[in-house]
Amino acid sequence: MKQERTIRVALLGAGSVGSQIARMLLTQRAEYQARCGADLELIGIAVRDVAAPRDVELPQQLLTADAAQLVAAADLVIEVMGGIEPARTLILQAIAGGADVVTANKALLAAHGPELHAAARAAGVQLSYEAAVAGAIPVLRPLLSSLVGDNVQRVMGIVNGSTNYILDSMHRAGKTAPEAMQIASELGYLEADPTLDVEGYDAAQKAAILARLAFHTELPADAVYREGITKVSAADVALAQENEQVIKLLAIIEKTVTAAGEPAVAARVYPALIPASHPLAAVHGGKNAIFVEAENAGELMFYGAGAGGAETASAVLGDVLSAARRMVGGGAPVDPPTHAVLHPLQMTDMTTSYQVRLAVSDAVAVVSELTTLCAAHQIAVVHVAERGSEVALTTVRALEVKQQRLVAEMAELPHVTEVLSVLRSEAVAA
Amino acid sequence: MKQERTIRVALLGAGSVGSQIARMLLTQRAEYQARCGADLELIGIAVRDVAAPRDVELPQQLLTADAAQLVAAADLVIEVMGGIEPARTLILQAIAGGADVVTANKALLAAHGPELHAAARAAGVQLSYEAAVAGAIPVLRPLLSSLVGDNVQRVMGIVNGSTNYILDSMHRAGKTAPEAMQIASELGYLEADPTLDVEGYDAAQKAAILARLAFHTELPADAVYREGITKVSAADVALAQENEQVIKLLAIIEKTVTAAGEPAVAARVYPALIPASHPLAAVHGGKNAIFVEAENAGELMFYGAGAGGAETASAVLGDVLSAARRMVGGGAPVDPPTHAVLHPLQMTDMTTSYQVRLAVSDAVAVVSELTTLCAAHQIAVVHVAERGSEVALTTVRALEVKQQRLVAEMAELPHVTEVLSVLRSEAVAA
Repeated sequence: MKQERTIRVALLGAGSVGSQIARMLLTQRAEYQARCGADLELIGIAVRDVAAPRDVELPQQLLTADAAQLVAAADLVIEVMGGIEPARTLILQAIAGGADVVTANKALLAAHGPELHAAARAAGVQLSYEAAVAGAIPVLRPLLSSLVGDNVQRVMGIVNGSTNYILDSMHRAGKTAPEAMQIASELGYLEADPTLDVEGYDAAQKAAILARLAFHTELPADAVYREGITKVSAADVALAQENEQVIKLLAIIEKTVTAAGEPAVAARVYPALIPASHPLAAVHGGKNAIFVEAENAGELMFYGAGAGGAETASAVLGDVLSAARRMVGGGAPVDPPTHAVLHPLQMTDMTTSYQVRLAVSDAVAVVSELTTLCAAHQIAVVHVAERGSEVALTTVRALEVKQQRLVAEMAELPHVTEVLSVLRSEAVAA
Repeated sequence: MKQERTIRVALLGAGSVGSQIARMLLTQRAEYQARCGADLELIGIAVRDVAAPRDVELPQQLLTADAAQLVAAADLVIEVMGGIEPARTLILQAIAGGADVVTANKALLAAHGPELHAAARAAGVQLSYEAAVAGAIPVLRPLLSSLVGDNVQRVMGIVNGSTNYILDSMHRAGKTAPEAMQIASELGYLEADPTLDVEGYDAAQKAAILARLAFHTELPADAVYREGITKVSAADVALAQENEQVIKLLAIIEKTVTAAGEPAVAARVYPALIPASHPLAAVHGGKNAIFVEAENAGELMFYGAGAGGAETASAVLGDVLSAARRMVGGGAPVDPPTHAVLHPLQMTDMTTSYQVRLAVSDAVAVVSELTTLCAAHQIAVVHVAERGSEVALTTVRALEVKQQRLVAEMAELPHVTEVLSVLRSEAVAA
């Protein structure tokens, strides 16, 4: 009798996400049984301090400080405590004990993904983590299953809501970066230490996870080039708007080849210019979106909430019920294949387009100097604009190392007083 | 040895989609094996006329006119011939023979979904049809699995590319409806008989399929209220633009209750006004998008190509490789649950907002008459604008039957000479 299967669920963590998961498991139990054929019994919630005050009321008898004992009793473990330890040890314990695992822990997956996957493979259990990338938005499962017959060429994502909120405030409300950060902080969009968000570490972790699902390859998070948004100025935003462009912090993974012609992946996180008409340009506030380019499907976009307790819980429960269906129906877990060997490119070996803003002492003279310099570097200029003591130019796509050399020499030009800013442009076609 | 499992694949149909599926199966065979653990062997392609000329070259020895014999030899059958028969009979034959089935046939699913699902359930085979709704866009699998732990409240889709192309041309290129239809026809966006598209039948079929996945209920396509785009005029479009709105043909399914408080579904297809800032408003040309509102996930959108040979083939192959993974790994197929009992509402029992354009002989007098009339009907007006001999007004949300009665009486007002147009507005909040 399918309907009588009971699955003992352990929940690790009762923060904003965990408490929503508990609420949904407790209130939707009968409906979930109708949907997945199993009775999901929440047998306990591991927390650091059983007596701590909580925003959402949870049944006191479910709370425990002994996570290891709870894990030992479970068929399925949900990990939403975050951080590397003790999450890693508890997940490995769950896997070794034969329990399926659902986690939202992007930092752990980015740092220890291969270890966790290998353990799950060896134990024959399902490891799922839809909530680890772009919160509520279904994107990992579509990449794993819906697009498994296609060849994904490029994924461009707005995967960090805090930084999108900040850049969007600068664009739409005319805020300066410090003002926008202050508001984001007051609204709870930023952690006490905002470095993980604003310096792009969080986005780089998500890029690494996306590469596994989209490109069937292992990609360490530290192989993702990373630049944050702290250098983006109000003047950069104003210039972007003049040119009908928008600045977004993008996580980009792209299939390419090395100089020697070997298959490679160009993975990077940086603030970049995109056309205002691009679907990603309309992603406002704290929302996330993943833009996918596939050989056959063409352009796809997945849009929604990238964070939030209930939103993230929705993605976790999707994984939980899917895992439950497999426990009821039997069969092997789905293990994302990683047979593809793609060499991670260094940033200097990637192909980029630059927008450079220069302070100049003589605009006419500088334009002439720039023309000569760019010609010498064999990098064409697609757009140049002068306004008073400022000149802005955009280069064609070329090797990043060549763009860097070009900018270094621009700084030495007789009539250039300062390089005000350098931004990469994803608006210039290859 | 997982890796040595061979799956014999039969392809029914070699049109624009079928020929792309054949190409992908033949050229990606080794890569597909690495991704799903099975060797997908295309054993034959059923066509009406083996000797007919084809756009894409297919191996002659794979072509056969004997579809039934081909189906009998297959482990997995892909049906992309379209139409009800012989597709229905062949799919039932495949299922009875124990083969998994992947189809893109929305008309067949809308008309015979329950029969096909029941047969697949009885035979223990997987029936999949991601390509039947919104072409390349992964939406059915996300609803079935990623959102299975959430409660989807409303789905609003642009699911017909032809009509979106026509309406978009009217908005963005200032075309009249006949001009836009002529261009759409020349570009191959419209069938020889465009009725299925422009009268909303195609969108209604997709709404019925979406209801099964989103709401876990059976919904016959003829229980979906349906109005096409033929009455949308250039004047309607101009007024929408003035009000920062856009007219889109929407397929909407919404959870609601009957007057007696019973759970119900309001399913309808009609051209409607949405705010220009709505994510669906930015869906241009022949693109599709599905906007989903869920209790926990909030607002999600899935965007991409709704048609095209390679695009649709991408979705079909996603289903094929997912089915192959299950054949290799074992376990029960996933059968979309339909335990929810939702009464399909009649259009007259749904709640709508109306935008009415009136030709008038005296604008000032009419506004006074309208105020009195709307007050008598207890339907407030949220917006009214007069321009020369025309008055346009938008009502609050109220029962459709009341809106209809109100408009009938407007037509009888002393200073109203004609009701020029009636459009529903999804821009007015509840």
